Amino acid sequence: MKVGIIGISGRMGAALSQATLKSDALVGGVSSVTTPEEWESVVKNSDVLADFSVPEAALRAAEMARKYKIPLVSGTTNFSENNFARFREYSRDIPLLHSSNFSVCVHLMAVLLKKCEKILQDFDFSITERHNRRKKDAPSGTALFLAKQIDKPAQTVSIRSGGICGDHVCDFIGENEMLTISHRAFNRDIFAAGALNCARWLRGKNPGFYSMNDYLKEKIDCPI
Amino acid sequence: MKVGIIGISGRMGAALSQATLKSDALVGGVSSVTTPEEWESVVKNSDVLADFSVPEAALRAAEMARKYKIPLVSGTTNFSENNFARFREYSRDIPLLHSSNFSVCVHLMAVLLKKCEKILQDFDFSITERHNRRKKDAPSGTALFLAKQIDKPAQTVSIRSGGICGDHVCDFIGENEMLTISHRAFNRDIFAAGALNCARWLRGKNPGFYSMNDYLKEKIDCPI
Amino acid sequence: MKVGIIGISGRMGAALSQATLKSDALVGGVSSVTTPEEWESVVKNSDVLADFSVPEAALRAAEMARKYKIPLVSGTTNFSENNFARFREYSRDIPLLHSSNFSVCVHLMAVLLKKCEKILQDFDFSITERHNRRKKDAPSGTALFLAKQIDKPAQTVSIRSGGICGDHVCDFIGENEMLTISHRAFNRDIFAAGALNCARWLRGKNPGFYSMNDYLKEKIDCPI
Amino acid sequence: MKVGIIGISGRMGAALSQATLKSDALVGGVSSVTTPEEWESVVKNSDVLADFSVPEAALRAAEMARKYKIPLVSGTTNFSENNFARFREYSRDIPLLHSSNFSVCVHLMAVLLKKCEKILQDFDFSITERHNRRKKDAPSGTALFLAKQIDKPAQTVSIRSGGICGDHVCDFIGENEMLTISHRAFNRDIFAAGALNCARWLRGKNPGFYSMNDYLKEKIDCPI
Repeated sequence: MKVGIIGISGRMGAALSQATLKSDALVGGVSSVTTPEEWESVVKNSDVLADFSVPEAALRAAEMARKYKIPLVSGTTNFSENNFARFREYSRDIPLLHSSNFSVCVHLMAVLLKKCEKILQDFDFSITERHNRRKKDAPSGTALFLAKQIDKPAQTVSIRSGGICGDHVCDFIGENEMLTISHRAFNRDIFAAGALNCARWLRGKNPGFYSMNDYLKEKIDCPI
Repeated sequence: MKVGIIGISGRMGAALSQATLKSDALVGGVSSVTTPEEWESVVKNSDVLADFSVPEAALRAAEMARKYKIPLVSGTTNFSENNFARFREYSRDIPLLHSSNFSVCVHLMAVLLKKCEKILQDFDFSITERHNRRKKDAPSGTALFLAKQIDKPAQTVSIRSGGICGDHVCDFIGENEMLTISHRAFNRDIFAAGALNCARWLRGKNPGFYSMNDYLKEKIDCPI
Repeated sequence: MKVGIIGISGRMGAALSQATLKSDALVGGVSSVTTPEEWESVVKNSDVLADFSVPEAALRAAEMARKYKIPLVSGTTNFSENNFARFREYSRDIPLLHSSNFSVCVHLMAVLLKKCEKILQDFDFSITERHNRRKKDAPSGTALFLAKQIDKPAQTVSIRSGGICGDHVCDFIGENEMLTISHRAFNRDIFAAGALNCARWLRGKNPGFYSMNDYLKEKIDCPI
Repeated sequence: MKVGIIGISGRMGAALSQATLKSDALVGGVSSVTTPEEWESVVKNSDVLADFSVPEAALRAAEMARKYKIPLVSGTTNFSENNFARFREYSRDIPLLHSSNFSVCVHLMAVLLKKCEKILQDFDFSITERHNRRKKDAPSGTALFLAKQIDKPAQTVSIRSGGICGDHVCDFIGENEMLTISHRAFNRDIFAAGALNCARWLRGKNPGFYSMNDYLKEKIDCPI
């Protein structure tokens, strides 16, 4: 799969280009200093575009993706409502997937928790998360996202300690047994890997606006 | 829910009667010394029958359950093929659920693993299980059951040590992150609790032959 | 080892008599209804006495233990200062070990944490503990005891959930690695087992007043 | 602390120079292309030398360290017996610490396991280790090292899976409880951090030949 990266000089763009080089072909990337000819060249030679940039560049990428009928995966945030509506418009002509978080495992956990809740009705639910000591917010955004998936209250506790990258432990504890679903991030490359997997999936899809849930729903053959 | 127990003097029957007394009404139980009048009385006063006995008693229970239109949950094993076919026949007239393992969590894990496999295709899969030192077989039956759920090979390792009741840890490990689904049994009451939950679910169902998968499938609103 | 139990009708006495019957000889036990002759008989036929009773009975046991030169292990609490001083006096003539908590593992963890702290000076320290939902106090007494062992502040978080018996997880987390010392209680028999191990150790000791730390210090050949 | 690095162009040298730059002053490093004048300059301006090179360079470093009375920490391996004896000779005049593994946590675990074994005599012992799928040997060298610390047999199981950096889980499991000591490496910088901590400790020591055990023994005030 030949990948063109929009926003290649950013932190996510850099991570993505490294991940691409390991498993796929990197066609090239564009940044704020790229010439129009180079833009054209990157887009038209790509099988899929991956965009982690700013709204203005994302819109330009979407426009060119439409011109050359190239699927587009985007993690760009901070769109104005208006700009996001415009961005979304391009999905009439090409497959376009947007997500603010590309960790597939975290989205998968959300699905699994919902399934568990339906069965483990007498069980208590808790989330223990551990992040590095420099992380300011607690609970983590991911813990809040996971807690929101289920109806019963989640006891959520947070540890901020050392350089640990990110652990989330979800426990369903009953009278006689417990079921645990937990996630451990080894490093921060997981978002790049997630975006690449979505890009791979998006090729060959019909034009339309997709989310991570569409990706998961189809893969696991299951309502979410 | 008023529960009548078939095979109340066995190990599972005893566990079940204790579990029933905590959360439901125990109507009574029958064993090999029960008189026909007592059988009759137990069955007709129950909302549901739970059978952990021997094939002969299970067949008799199914016959009386049909007479009084009482749903029947059965964990009896060692049926001959012929007897099992006869047993199954009764499900034309009453809801009848049979399973050789009533740990809901273990069946739920099986479902979750299948969902994970669909998404985590680049991840390796392994099972680590720990049981008490007196357990002879390794891997455990549960580990084998879990390994069978997914297509990719499962590295399975077993620890036999001390008095630990039963841990099963299923790891999907990728390049940059890992997702773990694990189960810990605190004691051996989990089968009784699982059977009671199935019994609760079975009430009000149409006549038919049900398995744990039917129970789960409906609860989690998802193909299995 | 022949064990005589003081306070055999209490919860700990019952657990202790069961544990004794598994691995040692139970000489007998005394309770509030025991006659003086039976007291005499139990004490003089024992290799060691284990006392989980009330201060008055503990004092009587200590007096008779001195008479027959029998070592005494005691977990009785709620002594008045005065009574405890009297109780302690008996250790001039017999080996007498007193502790308010006989879980050897918990005392061992305390020792290990102190060793870790000396080495892992740049690491952060945290304790995560999980107990059943009926437990009122949080953090647990054990978590507070463990936190007290080391100088640096301990982030302590508590989960109260389902029927989980008691987990304590102590994490030292550094920039690049973490070391964890954790304890899992399977059931409440651990105090009985701990008291029996102390009793075994106490036989053959010189008269004196001992604590769990003396027991550990000698065993691990290490200042505490 | 001003650190001079011998073998700065190797993998460990590079990790060490990065670690040094974070917390200490890096005086400079030498490699096979360094001139004699630069060697001289690096050594005499350092508070301590850290050597991860080859035996020939290590010997040269030791000679110059002696000349300028600079303590030396070395992780160089593959010495011939003869060369190692010569290398060791320099410790008559300077403090010199040599170790083939600078993970302090792993050495600390070894000490903790020995303490546990003395107390948890009725417990079974097992090691579960997980490393990335590219690691060929199983059990890991670290697992073998840990297993060697205690007398009772260690059930050792190994998982090779995904990109997991290195987990070692040591379980002492008894009838009613379990104690676990586990280590998780987040990345491969732990050896650099360990070497720097040893270097810090070595300054101000008397001349002599030291090992990681000396470092630990003094820190934790305990025979090993």
